Amino acid sequence: MKALLYDGELKLLPDYPRPKPPPGEALIRVSLAGICNTDLEIAKGYMGFQGVLGHEFVGIVEAAEEEGWLGKRVVGEINCYCGECPLCRKGLFTHCPERTTLGIWGRGGAFAEYLTLPLANLHLVPEEIPDEDAVFVEPLAAALEILEQIQVKPTDRVIVVGDGKLGLLVAQVLALQGCDLLAVGHHAHKLEVLKRLGIATHLGEGSLEGSFDIVVDCTGNPEGFAQALGLLRPRGTLVLKSTYHGEAEVDLSRLVVDETTLIGSRCGPFVPALELLRRGLVEVASLISATLPLEEGIGAFQLAGKRETLKVLLRP
Amino acid sequence: MKALLYDGELKLLPDYPRPKPPPGEALIRVSLAGICNTDLEIAKGYMGFQGVLGHEFVGIVEAAEEEGWLGKRVVGEINCYCGECPLCRKGLFTHCPERTTLGIWGRGGAFAEYLTLPLANLHLVPEEIPDEDAVFVEPLAAALEILEQIQVKPTDRVIVVGDGKLGLLVAQVLALQGCDLLAVGHHAHKLEVLKRLGIATHLGEGSLEGSFDIVVDCTGNPEGFAQALGLLRPRGTLVLKSTYHGEAEVDLSRLVVDETTLIGSRCGPFVPALELLRRGLVEVASLISATLPLEEGIGAFQLAGKRETLKVLLRP
Repeated sequence: MKALLYDGELKLLPDYPRPKPPPGEALIRVSLAGICNTDLEIAKGYMGFQGVLGHEFVGIVEAAEEEGWLGKRVVGEINCYCGECPLCRKGLFTHCPERTTLGIWGRGGAFAEYLTLPLANLHLVPEEIPDEDAVFVEPLAAALEILEQIQVKPTDRVIVVGDGKLGLLVAQVLALQGCDLLAVGHHAHKLEVLKRLGIATHLGEGSLEGSFDIVVDCTGNPEGFAQALGLLRPRGTLVLKSTYHGEAEVDLSRLVVDETTLIGSRCGPFVPALELLRRGLVEVASLISATLPLEEGIGAFQLAGKRETLKVLLRP
Repeated sequence: MKALLYDGELKLLPDYPRPKPPPGEALIRVSLAGICNTDLEIAKGYMGFQGVLGHEFVGIVEAAEEEGWLGKRVVGEINCYCGECPLCRKGLFTHCPERTTLGIWGRGGAFAEYLTLPLANLHLVPEEIPDEDAVFVEPLAAALEILEQIQVKPTDRVIVVGDGKLGLLVAQVLALQGCDLLAVGHHAHKLEVLKRLGIATHLGEGSLEGSFDIVVDCTGNPEGFAQALGLLRPRGTLVLKSTYHGEAEVDLSRLVVDETTLIGSRCGPFVPALELLRRGLVEVASLISATLPLEEGIGAFQLAGKRETLKVLLRP
């Protein structure tokens, strides 16, 4: 099968071996896949993964032990867990130390004609949701993870820092809480996506004051983290929603004096993400910058890495 | 009056002017005061404060507009707030941006014969509590602040890192929650205080594993922070209970991947601290390394700065 993989460099292979589903897993034909910033990081060698990239997808089940799944259109949770360790027994499946993660760690991903995932990870896609929306379920679930971790009250002042793909999804999810929300970024055309939805935005960093109850950092860089921290009121909560390159210098004493809460946030729940898309409460079509055939995957990565680009989709 | 102050160097002055209480404040004769690590930091020039040091005290009200306070034995909350700013209106008095803090910021402290504090900051000391216990109310309240901020469940695995004065109070407070508690430090004779109370302890860093639900860092140094972070399970909570020197290198991506919560913790509630002392549920007598007259304040600071010392008290 065709596959886009990283083994020290990014390569498009025309005849990569099709994965064989082990017991309990389904073989899924990928219909559409999305390039995430994590994929761009892996393709720069930052995360140590080698193999087929990609973890955002929608596809059709072609083989499974349970016949009911055959032919079904699905999305899939990306962390595959042991189910038996102390963390799994606590329900912290996404933190299983034995986990593999689709296209990120120990398991080939979605930038290929086929992938395999455990049946337990699959979710049926309601027919109202087109493939072009369903491919956003994974990052939308990551945005929803914030609400699994902290309470966002209708009376809270909330700011989302960073107008990348994930920032735009986070802002849309938080705006549904009725809170006083501001999204800040450096790209007018990206913030425009939110403006059209009636969400308040702010271009650049000037004239912002540090009095927000909740700040979500979607920048993924230490400068963004520093800016985000400066916008927080005492006893406020800073959600770290992106992974960062390397280490950051943090003034821990300031966290103590201001009694700040920092909370890291990663993968989230698929069921509510599907529900928000089904009801049309989150708008993702305007986040798509381009849809390219998988054969053009290397060019698609170059495009996805440009500052002005939002989501690039790949069609195998 | 006699006073121990810092103005670039630590000085004992025999005839420092006695403070005059402004409207709404009481004049308090200090009976006993305690040296905190924050005082040692200020005396090294780290916090930019100049004036009479000291914020842990018990004393007698000698002058006040409300006669009912006269002659009363009191302890006092150390943050003096405006009461009118947005943070005060939210009840976040200890975070008022206009605040002064006894012996720490904008207000002379307790290492003197007299101090002044607003009546609103004072708490009567029940007669069952001797001065030698009451002088620990402020740091014990700081330990209790943890329970104001996070839920510590009886089934949680909790570890307190650092066996200094504050660490020993934090460990005692958390042990009252019934949780599976371990206190770790580098000083056998300090951990012995906890051992005698039946609290589990661990000397040194060897053979500790990273699977605690809650870690409280009472070390105040970046190495201790790194150790504390390494002891946390995914989705665990790290409480920062000490201020730190300078900045620390923090791997923010690890916080994201493990969905860790970091929370800074500072001043806490006096009423429950008095209640725990009144009922004898926290043992502080064995934390006293020495009680010296205020005249020997400079030597007392030298003693308090030694690794093996716990609390040094000053008697004006």
